[in-house]
Amino acid sequence: MPARRPILLNAFAMNCVGHINHGLWTHPRDRSDEYRHLDHWTDLARTLEDGLFDALFLADIVGVYDIYGGSIDLAARESIQLPVNDPVLLLPAMAAVTRRLGFAVTVNTAIEHPYSFARRLSTLDHLTGGRVGWNIVTGYLDSAARAVGREAMAEHDSRYDRADDYLDFLYKLWEGSWEDGAVLRDKAARRFADPARIHEIRHEGPYYRGQGYHLAEPSPQRTPVLFQAGSSGRGQRFAARHAEGVFINARDPVAAARTARSLREAVVAAGRRPEDIRIFVGVSVVTGATDAEAQEKLADYVAHASPEAGMAHFSAGSGIDLAPLGLDDEIVTGPTNAIQSTTAAAQAARLTKRRLLGDLALGGRYPLIVGSGATVAAEMRRWRDEGEIDGFNLTRTVVPECWRDFVRFVVPALQERGLYKTAYGEGTLRRRLFGEGDRLPDRHAGAQAWRG
Amino acid sequence: MPARRPILLNAFAMNCVGHINHGLWTHPRDRSDEYRHLDHWTDLARTLEDGLFDALFLADIVGVYDIYGGSIDLAARESIQLPVNDPVLLLPAMAAVTRRLGFAVTVNTAIEHPYSFARRLSTLDHLTGGRVGWNIVTGYLDSAARAVGREAMAEHDSRYDRADDYLDFLYKLWEGSWEDGAVLRDKAARRFADPARIHEIRHEGPYYRGQGYHLAEPSPQRTPVLFQAGSSGRGQRFAARHAEGVFINARDPVAAARTARSLREAVVAAGRRPEDIRIFVGVSVVTGATDAEAQEKLADYVAHASPEAGMAHFSAGSGIDLAPLGLDDEIVTGPTNAIQSTTAAAQAARLTKRRLLGDLALGGRYPLIVGSGATVAAEMRRWRDEGEIDGFNLTRTVVPECWRDFVRFVVPALQERGLYKTAYGEGTLRRRLFGEGDRLPDRHAGAQAWRG
Repeated sequence: MPARRPILLNAFAMNCVGHINHGLWTHPRDRSDEYRHLDHWTDLARTLEDGLFDALFLADIVGVYDIYGGSIDLAARESIQLPVNDPVLLLPAMAAVTRRLGFAVTVNTAIEHPYSFARRLSTLDHLTGGRVGWNIVTGYLDSAARAVGREAMAEHDSRYDRADDYLDFLYKLWEGSWEDGAVLRDKAARRFADPARIHEIRHEGPYYRGQGYHLAEPSPQRTPVLFQAGSSGRGQRFAARHAEGVFINARDPVAAARTARSLREAVVAAGRRPEDIRIFVGVSVVTGATDAEAQEKLADYVAHASPEAGMAHFSAGSGIDLAPLGLDDEIVTGPTNAIQSTTAAAQAARLTKRRLLGDLALGGRYPLIVGSGATVAAEMRRWRDEGEIDGFNLTRTVVPECWRDFVRFVVPALQERGLYKTAYGEGTLRRRLFGEGDRLPDRHAGAQAWRG
Repeated sequence: MPARRPILLNAFAMNCVGHINHGLWTHPRDRSDEYRHLDHWTDLARTLEDGLFDALFLADIVGVYDIYGGSIDLAARESIQLPVNDPVLLLPAMAAVTRRLGFAVTVNTAIEHPYSFARRLSTLDHLTGGRVGWNIVTGYLDSAARAVGREAMAEHDSRYDRADDYLDFLYKLWEGSWEDGAVLRDKAARRFADPARIHEIRHEGPYYRGQGYHLAEPSPQRTPVLFQAGSSGRGQRFAARHAEGVFINARDPVAAARTARSLREAVVAAGRRPEDIRIFVGVSVVTGATDAEAQEKLADYVAHASPEAGMAHFSAGSGIDLAPLGLDDEIVTGPTNAIQSTTAAAQAARLTKRRLLGDLALGGRYPLIVGSGATVAAEMRRWRDEGEIDGFNLTRTVVPECWRDFVRFVVPALQERGLYKTAYGEGTLRRRLFGEGDRLPDRHAGAQAWRG
């Protein structure tokens, strides 16, 4: 068996109270409602860096979950990603108290024009010293479209066409506007930068156009590490061209391996190498000193969870109002603009509301790994090997103890088995994830796009 | 003579190398080119809090200064606000190392839709514990319009009409969507929030429309403290309706008093009280242990300044290319979409290029106050009393020594004379600036707009 790279680890969180495992905010020890305070996040960042996490992966949603029961009632009562604050603003404070922890932050391409967004991410890459990733999302909620004065969200595939165009504009700004030698910082010669090496870029795309100089000088990574989570056919094509990290959902390692192979084939078809993407599967871990302690903890958590809130979240993702369905009705749907992979998987599995509620015992539907550090480490190895993945996005349960438990019990067990690093590598997030340079490799579309 | 309130102080800076006093980046002790690093900003925040500054006022520009000589050549060589990074992202890191310092950050209303921008500022207000102000700008550079695919910037007055509409949308989200009692945080009853007290707002304005729930729960101030710098007729009307802090330019106290009176009259005409706005005048201070030392320091600074770069900055603000003019040509212009007050003042003063260069000895055109702490304090008192203003925006010269010098020499001199606070007050930025509540007063348009 070939030597495998160490398992990669992202913590998966969100600037809100209820993220994935719904209802756990009611647990007496849970402090996720302190999301409004900087200390909550700087403490988290320190904990994750103690555990040598590769990155904190921050989800986001613009819009509200108003499908279930046709209202926001349950979303408000159980704080199902409502309220939800801007995730981007957490990074500077967390970067200031850490040195190596990376950040992958979700931003919807529909929020602002690429010209100002390019500067926003370049600024983050500067301030973090090259530790920024961007999780590219295109949005799927009609409530978000109405909020900005449109009738409904654009059709699913066209959102990716628009995002392709958005990325092409960004690549020109990030990669093409300032040459590497443009900034001189020469006080004696009074030459801060050489104007001959700063280029106005022009973009005339189907959705975006403009011409201008990038406002930021080159940052350590130029283009941030690009993450994406699309699993539909169109989403996979988008990932094959752009993504360096892909976040997948899978019920078991067999399903993970199917998605991972399909993704790597698409990446190769796009002129890249199979190892040019790192694949992360989402899981929930509950751990303790022993298997028994972990099982007890799980039972305590489950007693505070809200499977109904999980169902409301599923309704938003699938576009199907599950409130009026009977427990044994199959969950079926016609064409929808919502998350394609969610609805396809539900139909393929002939999912009923009863089975869905069973899956949602902890309030979320991510595969659950429960046990001592040794048990969890063994199961993570199995996922990695059988699932053909590179790492995990770990959902939060009861905050912050879930992170501290993982660092205390699982990290040493992974390290003892040679499955996890024992110190951070040097350099930018991209360099540490791929072991090559700080910048996009030449074979990535973004490294070439601006020359076009 | 009535007791006067203590002088208010903002430090005026920008997330770039050359801000106002151009060329000083070449001074051997200047470290403004460390703007890319978080430490530079957290150190500044600590220094300002040591000096009891009310706020750090961060400028911004989206676009480049390409009027002078028809290119960005000088802007790149002297780093005239190019490169320029996003200012908003500095706040979370600076807030994490301070407790009372406020922040007034410039954001152009043209960057993003009010729905997502409302959340961005609410998030900042949460994370800073109610210490955020927003300096509202509408943009004036054609280079910015071209960057986002438009031919040229919108006509001057219509930019304010659009900004009025933008603010009305924001007020509905900030003030009207979540009632004060909406958030319960009741774990035992499983009720995070009461949906009956969260309202969908609708806006159908001439420029912006949409309907939705604000994504953020109410922050300490709800609406951030609103700053504005428009001095034109239309800009003053905008300020009269919205602004709580107004940043003015004036060559001397007489000119400041003229603007201050005109502003307060407009505020009263808008149904508010004259003391509902705080007026800040921009000045540059060079200080030292003695008057002689301060004068020596000034001479040293002047030797490193770039009056030509200051002229290029003036060209961008006025829309007039000064490069081809003769030294004694008067600076005249036809109608322009650029900064109205700049061009009007130049014409009224029959300004020539030679006189302008003389004004720009330190690289910027702000009134200069030079001397020991006692001398500067006396001059600041004169400005306050004769200029009928409330405080100052202090430009930076050689960074960071200009801030340290001010805190060391001027702050104690102001305090000894009873002109400045000796400790921070409690509460939010708004409460500390106005001595009333954390929220907009009922007489402010924003406190009522959402009910319409």
